[in-house]
Amino acid sequence: MATINDNFLRIKESYLFSDIAKRVSAYTAAHPDKKVIRMGIGDVTLPLAPSVVEAMRTAAAEMGRQETFHGYGPEQGYPFLRDAVAQYYKGRSGVDLDTDEIFINDGAKSDVGNITDLFGPNNTVLVTDPVYPVYVDTNVMSGRNIVYLPSTRENDFTPLPDPSVRADMIYLCSPNNPTGSVYNRRQLAQWVDYARRNGSILLFDSAYEAYVSDPALPHSIYQIEGARECAIEFCSFSKMAGFTGTRCGYTVVPKGVTALDAAGRPVPLNKLWLRRQCTKFNGVPYVVQRAAEAVFTPQGQREVREMIGYYMGNAALMAETLRGKGIEFAGGVSSPYIWMRCPGGMDSWKFFDLLLEQANVVGTPGAGFGRCGEGYFRLTAFGSRENTREAMDRLNRLL
Amino acid sequence: MATINDNFLRIKESYLFSDIAKRVSAYTAAHPDKKVIRMGIGDVTLPLAPSVVEAMRTAAAEMGRQETFHGYGPEQGYPFLRDAVAQYYKGRSGVDLDTDEIFINDGAKSDVGNITDLFGPNNTVLVTDPVYPVYVDTNVMSGRNIVYLPSTRENDFTPLPDPSVRADMIYLCSPNNPTGSVYNRRQLAQWVDYARRNGSILLFDSAYEAYVSDPALPHSIYQIEGARECAIEFCSFSKMAGFTGTRCGYTVVPKGVTALDAAGRPVPLNKLWLRRQCTKFNGVPYVVQRAAEAVFTPQGQREVREMIGYYMGNAALMAETLRGKGIEFAGGVSSPYIWMRCPGGMDSWKFFDLLLEQANVVGTPGAGFGRCGEGYFRLTAFGSRENTREAMDRLNRLL
Repeated sequence: MATINDNFLRIKESYLFSDIAKRVSAYTAAHPDKKVIRMGIGDVTLPLAPSVVEAMRTAAAEMGRQETFHGYGPEQGYPFLRDAVAQYYKGRSGVDLDTDEIFINDGAKSDVGNITDLFGPNNTVLVTDPVYPVYVDTNVMSGRNIVYLPSTRENDFTPLPDPSVRADMIYLCSPNNPTGSVYNRRQLAQWVDYARRNGSILLFDSAYEAYVSDPALPHSIYQIEGARECAIEFCSFSKMAGFTGTRCGYTVVPKGVTALDAAGRPVPLNKLWLRRQCTKFNGVPYVVQRAAEAVFTPQGQREVREMIGYYMGNAALMAETLRGKGIEFAGGVSSPYIWMRCPGGMDSWKFFDLLLEQANVVGTPGAGFGRCGEGYFRLTAFGSRENTREAMDRLNRLL
Repeated sequence: MATINDNFLRIKESYLFSDIAKRVSAYTAAHPDKKVIRMGIGDVTLPLAPSVVEAMRTAAAEMGRQETFHGYGPEQGYPFLRDAVAQYYKGRSGVDLDTDEIFINDGAKSDVGNITDLFGPNNTVLVTDPVYPVYVDTNVMSGRNIVYLPSTRENDFTPLPDPSVRADMIYLCSPNNPTGSVYNRRQLAQWVDYARRNGSILLFDSAYEAYVSDPALPHSIYQIEGARECAIEFCSFSKMAGFTGTRCGYTVVPKGVTALDAAGRPVPLNKLWLRRQCTKFNGVPYVVQRAAEAVFTPQGQREVREMIGYYMGNAALMAETLRGKGIEFAGGVSSPYIWMRCPGGMDSWKFFDLLLEQANVVGTPGAGFGRCGEGYFRLTAFGSRENTREAMDRLNRLL
């Protein structure tokens, strides 16, 4: 008799986005004349950059000619793209990576989950709360114990390691989804120090690094001394270049990162990850890798910097509105997310309903991201300028 | 202290294709003047069909315009492609599938491995030997016990269930990689019967179904009565339409397929799989899904049928040569693989060396696919006609 992985029954059913969708469609059905502005889901709205489209179209044409056709590629990605990623790291933050420490993925979400394959079930996982649900669900799925570190206004939404809490696998996301907060170097150094002292692995999600504009803030965990011995980093073209529907990113597993086998011997995770990828993955489409490569050309960089600038213009507008209303918030600088306190101590679903019904604006209730998210609300900067401005006008009138 | 998944240390390091590559490069380095013909790796060589390229280029252009841009798509794939798959099943083999039983994947290899997430570690896995290594390695990785069912000339490389062997998860591949053999309906009915009797799940890999030309042979496990209660099917555009470097396929999980939870209650796997995919996957690129959709248009079907016909012409040529030499083999009909007995009882690596050195032809030693592969050799029909013809001429002269 085949039996299921019972851990699946322990995953909390999250109805966050489907609940939001239901409430929104009920509202629009009852009020078909109202223009609802969505600032909820973290999806981008600007089209792909011209250089990216051009590279993809050229690659598609190559696939149609015998002499330039590409069959199976390397599971870990084509060298042309891995080299481009290595150069990007070098140029942006002075981080030296070997090409074989870089693995091209089909988006950070996949690998943030897939990486759990490498670890035994008895590792304790630490996440900050509020949390991107994928960190939690993929580990519940594989039967691990999870501890939550509160990320609150008291710690500026940048919680630091608690030496009394033992954790073997630690997810950090900076700039953070959903709070928009960004760790500085000194704070990350404390995490690296904790990880090295405890033999923990940092799983560092830098999906939003391209939004960091303050030159003092790190883009990569590898800007911190010692991180090459304890950290795996995940990044994505999704938010950097609008690839949410194009699916590409990269995972960095430095050769110095090890975890222990049952006999207590350190095993390099780079080798295990390569094995995992060669067994369960066949690489990212050639045309998508060529499109991603175009992001790193000088012209591609100019184009995506412009997109990011546009979204950050939205964030500035939102921040200005909230400041004008005296509403506390995090993020909005070096991050496309704004994490606002619900006015008047409202709970986050109540504020959701108020905003939907009175201002026809959709956001994400903080409670959907964990216990510490209650009383907060996430707004994203990924809409159009026009919609963002109108939403802020409505907010201004409402509050 | 972070600890690894120790099952990784139990995966047999397979050096099959790297060993082949090493021997080939050593040979070519020593004999730079020789033209080596590769009939080893199962990669296609013909370019993508014109309708597919056109659809991909159009979709790439859509991604570059605000009004037609696509961000995050549904994790299980766009309805346009899932509907096209459903219609393909209906038209080709009279199988009725609901759209929400079809999940678009980035290639059969990924999902053949990912599906193991749904099952507990105590299931016994049955594979036929010789075997596509992914079935074995992904299950060793998750700590399951594996039993091997010999696939030999005695059972025409279509082994049937042994009622004395208990298995909970059963991988079947038909047309088979590497043996090229195809199960008929009566044989598959025995497997479905066994699975239903024992509460087992059939994991049916139909990656090569498009090569089945005999109308009496099934393309899908769902052509067998009762399979909708016990079988999950994996298919791919890789061999059907040359998508090895484009990455798309589909996984079918009928709503009637269940496995037991710890309390002995049946749990529908369709729901678990949707949960798994929504947690660990973000869908296949929009442009790739549009390319795949084009495969199912009348023009696309004409184009890919022509590609398949071309490869099957190669297979016919190879079969003719082997028959002429009185060499026993399976496959080559309704399958792009030929599984030949090594002449004179040679072992498969010895024959590999002989063929490389004396005929400058590369194939795959059967021993690389499992114990029962010893004494056999796999040739693939995915080369050019010219190379296939030349390779067969050389074989003719050598043997």
